[in-house]
Amino acid sequence: MDIQTCYNTYSSVYRQKYLALYHALRESIVEGALSEGERLPSSRSLADAYGLSRGTVNLAYDMLAEEGYVARGVGSGTFVAFHGGGSGGMGGIAGVSGDGLQDRQPPARQAAVPLSAWGRRIERLGQRVGLPPGEAVHFSTADIDRAAFPAAEWNRAMYAAARTTGAAEHGDAFNAQGYLPLREAIARHLGRTRGIATTAGHIVVVNGSMQALALLVQLLVDPGEPVVIEHPGYAGTSRAVEAAGGVPVRVPVDSQGIVPSPWDARVLVVTPNRQFPTGAVLPLERRQQLLRWASEREAVIVEDDYDSEFRHGGRPVEPLKSLDREGRVAFVGTFSRTMYAGLRLGYVVLPDSLLDVFAALKQLYEPHPSGATEQRALAAFMSGGYYERHLRKMKRVYSGKYGVVNRLFRELLADSFDVHPQDAGLHVYCTWRKSHSEYAELMRRCGSRGVTWTDVSYERDGRTVSAACFGFSGLTEEQMRRGIRIIQEEGAGI
Amino acid sequence: MDIQTCYNTYSSVYRQKYLALYHALRESIVEGALSEGERLPSSRSLADAYGLSRGTVNLAYDMLAEEGYVARGVGSGTFVAFHGGGSGGMGGIAGVSGDGLQDRQPPARQAAVPLSAWGRRIERLGQRVGLPPGEAVHFSTADIDRAAFPAAEWNRAMYAAARTTGAAEHGDAFNAQGYLPLREAIARHLGRTRGIATTAGHIVVVNGSMQALALLVQLLVDPGEPVVIEHPGYAGTSRAVEAAGGVPVRVPVDSQGIVPSPWDARVLVVTPNRQFPTGAVLPLERRQQLLRWASEREAVIVEDDYDSEFRHGGRPVEPLKSLDREGRVAFVGTFSRTMYAGLRLGYVVLPDSLLDVFAALKQLYEPHPSGATEQRALAAFMSGGYYERHLRKMKRVYSGKYGVVNRLFRELLADSFDVHPQDAGLHVYCTWRKSHSEYAELMRRCGSRGVTWTDVSYERDGRTVSAACFGFSGLTEEQMRRGIRIIQEEGAGI
Repeated sequence: MDIQTCYNTYSSVYRQKYLALYHALRESIVEGALSEGERLPSSRSLADAYGLSRGTVNLAYDMLAEEGYVARGVGSGTFVAFHGGGSGGMGGIAGVSGDGLQDRQPPARQAAVPLSAWGRRIERLGQRVGLPPGEAVHFSTADIDRAAFPAAEWNRAMYAAARTTGAAEHGDAFNAQGYLPLREAIARHLGRTRGIATTAGHIVVVNGSMQALALLVQLLVDPGEPVVIEHPGYAGTSRAVEAAGGVPVRVPVDSQGIVPSPWDARVLVVTPNRQFPTGAVLPLERRQQLLRWASEREAVIVEDDYDSEFRHGGRPVEPLKSLDREGRVAFVGTFSRTMYAGLRLGYVVLPDSLLDVFAALKQLYEPHPSGATEQRALAAFMSGGYYERHLRKMKRVYSGKYGVVNRLFRELLADSFDVHPQDAGLHVYCTWRKSHSEYAELMRRCGSRGVTWTDVSYERDGRTVSAACFGFSGLTEEQMRRGIRIIQEEGAGI
Repeated sequence: MDIQTCYNTYSSVYRQKYLALYHALRESIVEGALSEGERLPSSRSLADAYGLSRGTVNLAYDMLAEEGYVARGVGSGTFVAFHGGGSGGMGGIAGVSGDGLQDRQPPARQAAVPLSAWGRRIERLGQRVGLPPGEAVHFSTADIDRAAFPAAEWNRAMYAAARTTGAAEHGDAFNAQGYLPLREAIARHLGRTRGIATTAGHIVVVNGSMQALALLVQLLVDPGEPVVIEHPGYAGTSRAVEAAGGVPVRVPVDSQGIVPSPWDARVLVVTPNRQFPTGAVLPLERRQQLLRWASEREAVIVEDDYDSEFRHGGRPVEPLKSLDREGRVAFVGTFSRTMYAGLRLGYVVLPDSLLDVFAALKQLYEPHPSGATEQRALAAFMSGGYYERHLRKMKRVYSGKYGVVNRLFRELLADSFDVHPQDAGLHVYCTWRKSHSEYAELMRRCGSRGVTWTDVSYERDGRTVSAACFGFSGLTEEQMRRGIRIIQEEGAGI
């Protein structure tokens, strides 16, 4: 391809003429249309030929000289200093084929790259898939009631934080643990509402509870080590354990939650305050047994408190962390459900022994804290009392919704689903009464009509327990009724 | 401690009376002041005694019953069901000492926790330290020129993004790779200004270039594996390699940047477009040699383009990625310097082979993307043309500042520092002419007068090269002059 054709092509790609010319000349040199030692046209003659200013041509020549493609002598013109074509020579470009311009596109055949053990595990675990699109009723566990959200108050806090964005992030208040006033507000909130006596110094703000779980597992678990997790349980937990090379020891959950046992392990990840997905609340005696186990084994308990702020019965449950005398519990909380999932803020209350090392590992990935605007907005929102007011309101709203969805399930789906009573939280846990193949068929049929939920089926004693989480927080009563009617209709046909 | 004293103490901690009573009773049960089987006062008599409503007392009793501390029989009153005191018994609380209330505070002596190999490496690497506080001149490499920042335009974009926060994060546009319109804007920008032909599909938005570096190293490097890094180089790079258990192979940098060599390694991390800290621009021939090396070794090159948007000479340098035909280069960029560090947005342009696995690893820590508001604001800011306009303006501003700081150094510090010329970037690289102990003394003295810079001294051939990065982007001419005069004064006295 000659320089002119090359230039015309690049002119359609680059708005600036000097860039188009630079690329055309570079291409011609690399592909061998211009040979090493060849003299380039003077800037005046090239400018005339292509209808460019001399300044434009000189700028392109300067760029080429800067990068070693051409050499410029005083008064002696510009010469090609580098010849990229052919297979030999000092400067040959590996893998260059003849058709220059196509090489500007990302090549179709790319090299395979050998991955680390971490990389291979992550590749094997794959990516999650999202929800299907379309007009539908998604019984999602990640949605909130947008109509009841205090948008005006929250937006005011976000505006105020955004207004000072870029200035406030550099102060002493923003260290690796997160924004100090936010950590102070969280500490006060946990003391008031959860009986956890802690300080801002023991809290690290994270961008969601999954970051806390993944970093904790990475800090505590070596490849091949057993980690006790609940079965059934949260898929993210087993994902974190497997990514770190740990061996998940899946222990059964009954109607009261995890069943303690003298496990030979150093790490337990548990949801005692509202088991995921079953919703069971772990009784005090089992909590004490877990803490004794941790003390005897010198183990760490990661307490995932993902969803227990909204108690329909109105009676708070004391977290494991509030009973932790030895510093064996890391308490992981999130604002994804009390605020909204897109906020990407959560926190972890850490024992002394894990505080610095956790902050340092987080800092490896994030030398500056992320979500700075959101952190400052949330600190103001909490300090101003808006957060607690919002929680009180949402407790009423969600308890009302829980009553509705629970009644609808019992009225319309009692033949096919066992509904497990819930003291708290934003989803209903159900088990299917018939065969798993029928359940799979139900999911397929409902999915085709736009009704989806979170499948949490699991294996026990060699058979599949067909189980479902129906999130209700983001749905109106009408949507719940429509969705449940569709499940009823499809269920009747199976 | 009796119940009344306990209640009075908790009343000062908890605003709600029922919570104070609940905690006082719980404490008394756990500590043994109330014994197993003991009958609690009726709600009426307790309410009378403490000046509470019966409802308050009943709520506290309900909470205790819920958690198994007390049992309530119909018409028979409320009994202590659990006795936590003493060393034996089913429900004993591990590690409980006698002084009940103090146990509510985080205990002073906490358990040591055995860490994973990752955890031990991170602990050894420690945390970074921040800058000292106070009125001072910090020649920081992380600051920007706040006066020149287009605050009105940016705040408008942030307001607009914040206004729809919580709704937009759930759409298809927000997947594990980041906000699609932002990735499209980045791809266009890289094509126009850096000659990198890529698509939104090959870009992953990260919360700063360090996240990209750390995740890439984690994906590519197994413990014990060699990783080629520059010497001197960016401390974060060696930190990422060491955290993953990799062995940094520190290769020398000369006035043209890294010196290629047939390293026996599979991963190279390099800053070819403006070497950190020296500012050297890697010539084309060495770029070709690096790519040939990667091809022959089946290696991956991580190209850290941390600071080459602002070229004082006005001549762009083509990144390695634009020459990458085989998909061996991961290009890491950041908005920390072109926008501001607190924004926490960067990106990586990945070869096909690393795209899915990188997104999946990022997703392990962040199932939802962080910085959602900022991502949407930046997408609008870029699409509206504000970003390129801002870059053009800042190029003038920073080139002017570079001229000033360069002149001041040559005028006032030529005796003590060699100033290395820079084609681009936001810091001046200098080497100290005298002994390293004198340099350390200079830093100490200047530090005590509030003048700081980034020390980038390094070992070579058994001796210490005393080197400094003087960031100038956030300083006014007056501040630069004041800071450099102080360095001059202190330097004269050594």
